[in-house]
Amino acid sequence: MLIIGERINSSRKLIAKAIENRDAGFIQNEAKLQTSAGADFIDVNAGSFAGEEEDHLKWLVDTVQRAVATPLCIDSPDPRVIRSVLPLVESAPMVNSITLEPVRLETILPLAMEHKAKVIGLCQSEETLSNSKEAKMDLAGQLVEKISAAGLPVTDFYIDPLVYPVATDSAAPLEALKAIAEIMEAYPGVHTTCGLTNVSHGMPKRKLINRTFLAAAVCYGLDCAIIDPTDPQLYGALLTALMLAGKDDFCTDYIGAYREGRLD
Amino acid sequence: MLIIGERINSSRKLIAKAIENRDAGFIQNEAKLQTSAGADFIDVNAGSFAGEEEDHLKWLVDTVQRAVATPLCIDSPDPRVIRSVLPLVESAPMVNSITLEPVRLETILPLAMEHKAKVIGLCQSEETLSNSKEAKMDLAGQLVEKISAAGLPVTDFYIDPLVYPVATDSAAPLEALKAIAEIMEAYPGVHTTCGLTNVSHGMPKRKLINRTFLAAAVCYGLDCAIIDPTDPQLYGALLTALMLAGKDDFCTDYIGAYREGRLD
Repeated sequence: MLIIGERINSSRKLIAKAIENRDAGFIQNEAKLQTSAGADFIDVNAGSFAGEEEDHLKWLVDTVQRAVATPLCIDSPDPRVIRSVLPLVESAPMVNSITLEPVRLETILPLAMEHKAKVIGLCQSEETLSNSKEAKMDLAGQLVEKISAAGLPVTDFYIDPLVYPVATDSAAPLEALKAIAEIMEAYPGVHTTCGLTNVSHGMPKRKLINRTFLAAAVCYGLDCAIIDPTDPQLYGALLTALMLAGKDDFCTDYIGAYREGRLD
Repeated sequence: MLIIGERINSSRKLIAKAIENRDAGFIQNEAKLQTSAGADFIDVNAGSFAGEEEDHLKWLVDTVQRAVATPLCIDSPDPRVIRSVLPLVESAPMVNSITLEPVRLETILPLAMEHKAKVIGLCQSEETLSNSKEAKMDLAGQLVEKISAAGLPVTDFYIDPLVYPVATDSAAPLEALKAIAEIMEAYPGVHTTCGLTNVSHGMPKRKLINRTFLAAAVCYGLDCAIIDPTDPQLYGALLTALMLAGKDDFCTDYIGAYREGRLD
């Protein structure tokens, strides 16, 4: 299971403020906390600063790299920003994300390969909302075709089926879960990943919904997630689900987390 | 989703004591608590009293029926006990359980039909431990064949795939989850049910494991569970999973539970 720590995102107020104030200590502490909590990659996102995203993201990359050796997940929808930031990255990163949009595919894929990056691809289409399992599978198939044609190994590719809010479509979460299982079966070696927060949009007790969805998704085969590993209840649900999914031999990780007091 | 309240079971010390002391108030309170918490059936079990099970179970049935109108789930492995208790039951009950063992099949099935009972069938064989999905499917198929031959409608039949402890077989939970999905697909109209506590046997933080397994099982199609509906975290996980599984139109039950302060 690959954990991408999601906390350094400018959509969070305290992070945005720290970015504006160039408060390196605050950002570095966030990077350290997530690393200690088990993050395999640290996501860095400055997307809420229109026009200044590139400068801010460069500063984030530099700031985080001075604090931890954990590789980065460069998070931007803008291929120009990704192109400008990737040369600063010290160890093989992740790129978040591509879609079938030609400019993202054509700009990001060659760069990602040059930097030995793993790549997240979203099951997103400009024409339709991919809320059914079938629509997600169709988009996943097109993505796999594109990355394979470009020469990116399927084992470096992380497909996010996208989950839409249960509040507006009660079928949405199960369609995403089924897509996860089917993607893992249809494309051996490929990975699946998921941002969780969308599923609970507009609902009360969002964290309960997010961690329950994560646990189910892990049982359906999800092997990467963009989460806050410092959230004890989320982390407990994740370790428990990994054990139930047969991915924790002799329950070693679960028992280790229990002994560290991290199961909630 | 059918909820069978599991609390009135003589394997719990306080229940055993109340049974021995004929403490009707204690038992009736347990029945009322579970009914208010959403139990559709109240399980009654006196199995830990060898030689006295029949007398004790008759007393439990009578005691619970005087307190609540909720139908009963008559829980005994002994077909003679079930035969002797069923005539006391006032509203169509559930029988927990049959296996492929001929004496249980031949005694219990005709009685169950006579009393318009729903029946739980365990994927259990005398010869082998049914820990793989394939073994469970084989037993489920034989059970469906037997109950159909006896004339019990498949819609009154609840198959428990049995989940073995993750502590001794790390593949066990996922095999049970996959069996749930496959049973629901293979036999339209049939139900699946599950006792949860076995999965966490021998592990710390058992309730965390049990509720995570329940949530995953609901997403895999489980539509009945033998649980303690008064456990707030378990109940919260259940309602959340039902919503994520597309079984809570407009999130009505989830939001209702939230307003009642029952989501934890």
